[in-house]
Amino acid sequence: MGAAALLGTASRVSAQVEARFDAADLAAAERLRDAALADGTAARLLTELCTGIGARPAGSAADAKAVAWAQQSLQQLGLARVRADAIPIRTWVRGAASARLLSPVPETLVMAALGNSVGTPAGGIEAEVAWYPNLAALRADGSSPETSLARGRIVIVDQKTERTRDGRGYGAAVAARAVGAVEAARRGAVAFGVRSIGTNQERIAHTGAMRYEIGVPRIPAFALSVPDAERLAQLHAQSAPLRLALQMDNRSDVEATTHNVIAEVPGSGPLAQEVVLISAHLDSWDLGQGAQDDGAGVAIVSAAAALIVKLGLQPRRTVRVVLFGNEENGFDGARNYGDRYGHEAHQWVGESDFGAGRVWQMRCRVDPVALPLVQRMAAVLAPLGVAWPEQGANEGSPGPDAGVLMRRFKWPALQLSQEGSAYFDVHHTVHDTLDRVDLGTLPQNVASWAVTAFLAAQSPLPFTLRAT
Amino acid sequence: MGAAALLGTASRVSAQVEARFDAADLAAAERLRDAALADGTAARLLTELCTGIGARPAGSAADAKAVAWAQQSLQQLGLARVRADAIPIRTWVRGAASARLLSPVPETLVMAALGNSVGTPAGGIEAEVAWYPNLAALRADGSSPETSLARGRIVIVDQKTERTRDGRGYGAAVAARAVGAVEAARRGAVAFGVRSIGTNQERIAHTGAMRYEIGVPRIPAFALSVPDAERLAQLHAQSAPLRLALQMDNRSDVEATTHNVIAEVPGSGPLAQEVVLISAHLDSWDLGQGAQDDGAGVAIVSAAAALIVKLGLQPRRTVRVVLFGNEENGFDGARNYGDRYGHEAHQWVGESDFGAGRVWQMRCRVDPVALPLVQRMAAVLAPLGVAWPEQGANEGSPGPDAGVLMRRFKWPALQLSQEGSAYFDVHHTVHDTLDRVDLGTLPQNVASWAVTAFLAAQSPLPFTLRAT
Repeated sequence: MGAAALLGTASRVSAQVEARFDAADLAAAERLRDAALADGTAARLLTELCTGIGARPAGSAADAKAVAWAQQSLQQLGLARVRADAIPIRTWVRGAASARLLSPVPETLVMAALGNSVGTPAGGIEAEVAWYPNLAALRADGSSPETSLARGRIVIVDQKTERTRDGRGYGAAVAARAVGAVEAARRGAVAFGVRSIGTNQERIAHTGAMRYEIGVPRIPAFALSVPDAERLAQLHAQSAPLRLALQMDNRSDVEATTHNVIAEVPGSGPLAQEVVLISAHLDSWDLGQGAQDDGAGVAIVSAAAALIVKLGLQPRRTVRVVLFGNEENGFDGARNYGDRYGHEAHQWVGESDFGAGRVWQMRCRVDPVALPLVQRMAAVLAPLGVAWPEQGANEGSPGPDAGVLMRRFKWPALQLSQEGSAYFDVHHTVHDTLDRVDLGTLPQNVASWAVTAFLAAQSPLPFTLRAT
Repeated sequence: MGAAALLGTASRVSAQVEARFDAADLAAAERLRDAALADGTAARLLTELCTGIGARPAGSAADAKAVAWAQQSLQQLGLARVRADAIPIRTWVRGAASARLLSPVPETLVMAALGNSVGTPAGGIEAEVAWYPNLAALRADGSSPETSLARGRIVIVDQKTERTRDGRGYGAAVAARAVGAVEAARRGAVAFGVRSIGTNQERIAHTGAMRYEIGVPRIPAFALSVPDAERLAQLHAQSAPLRLALQMDNRSDVEATTHNVIAEVPGSGPLAQEVVLISAHLDSWDLGQGAQDDGAGVAIVSAAAALIVKLGLQPRRTVRVVLFGNEENGFDGARNYGDRYGHEAHQWVGESDFGAGRVWQMRCRVDPVALPLVQRMAAVLAPLGVAWPEQGANEGSPGPDAGVLMRRFKWPALQLSQEGSAYFDVHHTVHDTLDRVDLGTLPQNVASWAVTAFLAAQSPLPFTLRAT
């Protein structure tokens, strides 16, 4: 082995060894952590948002109220450059909806229209059911009206959602809700119903976004509560021909405006133009109060940034809070942010959008050279029960909006995994209300975001991902 | 003390001492008890009723189907004189309903129209709220529109229901639902909303009957889910003026027919004309499947009578199963039964109408002379965990229909108290479905009803209450 090679290896090793946080920054991070645990800001913000504003579908009057509230709150918390970027959108407005099983046994079903769904004709739709255990079975049933049982029928897809800590079960099931109506319409169906993508056993339906595809008929789409879907499954298993009546009255393509609310803890020095983005989404579905989805995230990242200000810390890079608009029904906020700020250097992006459960794991997606720095951050959070996984630590994925940006710009990303076993019990339902949130777990979340945001801003290395 | 007095005392004591069940009857009762524990009839009946027919509001097509099913089932179980007594009724039909909090925070409320309520005018009602913590507070607020805050407002009564084992909490609260609209209308209110009379914390509303009074305006009446009522209470506590929009579309006074379904295990010998009445009600509210209320009771008493037949027992008195029509919204079945059969001697009346929980206590209301006999019955059930209370054993009250008859005819009564701590979590809601019933507790109920019905039929003494 030649001397040059040895020297090369040595200098790489030495670069890694030397890339360390300043002891003062680590000490400040520990102060942030400990102060967060005694800080009631997140609980206050979440309470104000849920009880003072409540549900805030993008583009609604409540959304506008939330945007004003968020700006005012962030200003009062001492953040700088507080602003709202206007985003023109086309929104969807829920109307009355009902579904009734006509035969073999008349029964009123508990259901909810899916976001974006067209309504039925004024007189409603009445048709036999074509029942499928899951989306794959629907996809396997021919490919056109001529070859599929779905033709002229109301398709019901009984897609189940597995309860998991990290939301994997939702990830595996949600396509049935999102694209089921397209698959059904391709096969000639007149309407599409999906078992609620959710994990509870209550007679409440989980709404959520669905989408149409150009060239495929737009048929009405709805979710059944889990017990109602199980009832249909049971009757189907008895070979009973099922007949449904469906009535829905929604409005689509209503022109409106939503906003991304942005606020900063300005950096100072040569790295001040680089951004550490911590985010959540401000909009919510209409059925509950948007408490866990995503009032909690709004409260957590706002309080985290506020704590950096409160402790008088001056980060090198800029810590930017972004409260995205219309995450739920189109990611308009994420796209708009990319259009406006895609040219800026982002140290990393992260989003808190999984309720208010404790953070139990930290992952990231950064240049491997920077990985020891991120691991060092995790060590600051270890006393709070935040683990650094032995495997896959650098295969993290941030939340939905941050994920859109990460994929578009190859920005590095942070993931703070929250305990989510019960998250899909209330997700997108009337039960997503303040009284179902454990406010006591918010401070540990705030600590996790404050520590990671601050240290990312202080990092001696950029986290930049190599273009791959 | 003279000899005559002594003799008198002695003969009364001796009458009581001698009034004993035959050993053979007690042995038969024990066989009934043990056979019931291995009998799946009640579970089968309840499953058929819930999944084959479902909700069956009195007078509906499903009610007629349930009447036919009940007759066929009782016949197949070997009961005699199976019949359905037609009862003309005026029914109420639920329409679409919605309520929305307009200010201080717009929010869609989860609610249900109360049974019998008129609808709103076509355009709905919009008004400020007059809020009361309970019915007593509404009653204390003046006595006319001139003297009450309710005038021109939507009255909200936040009456709470305490969770109890025996349903006392419901008994204490239910008047708010039943007569609240009358009290509100007397004071000039334009509509009336009550916190659901129920014990769960879910966003589902509990329906139930309300009534109007001649001479008092008929205003729309509805129940709010418990969390929604708590939300209004919270906003009220913050002195926020509340404004509601209400829309309801119900139909009242629809002419229809319901039935009492009756079947018997005929008595033999001189007491054959006397009746031991065991009952339940066949109708249900429309929101669930009428599983606990009162499919369970239908299944229990039917299976109990069937077991007497199955074991080849020939009772002295006639054991009569009555499945009452329209308990929920007017007691038409109980009244009709009284009109038709009030002249017959009834040994006692009992009704199973408190779900499917285990029987934990037995009480009665009989001539005190017969009390030791009833206590002896309880002893047969003691191994099943059925207690005979040290106090108040003779202050029992049967279920709702049986209670109507007991009060009208001074008939003796049996009460088999069921574990009901969770009963009002599902009562009158969309959750009153088969999947929420523990079928495993049905056999213990069947045993309790079979033993008591059979021994009441064999009793050496009549249980007749003295006219008081």
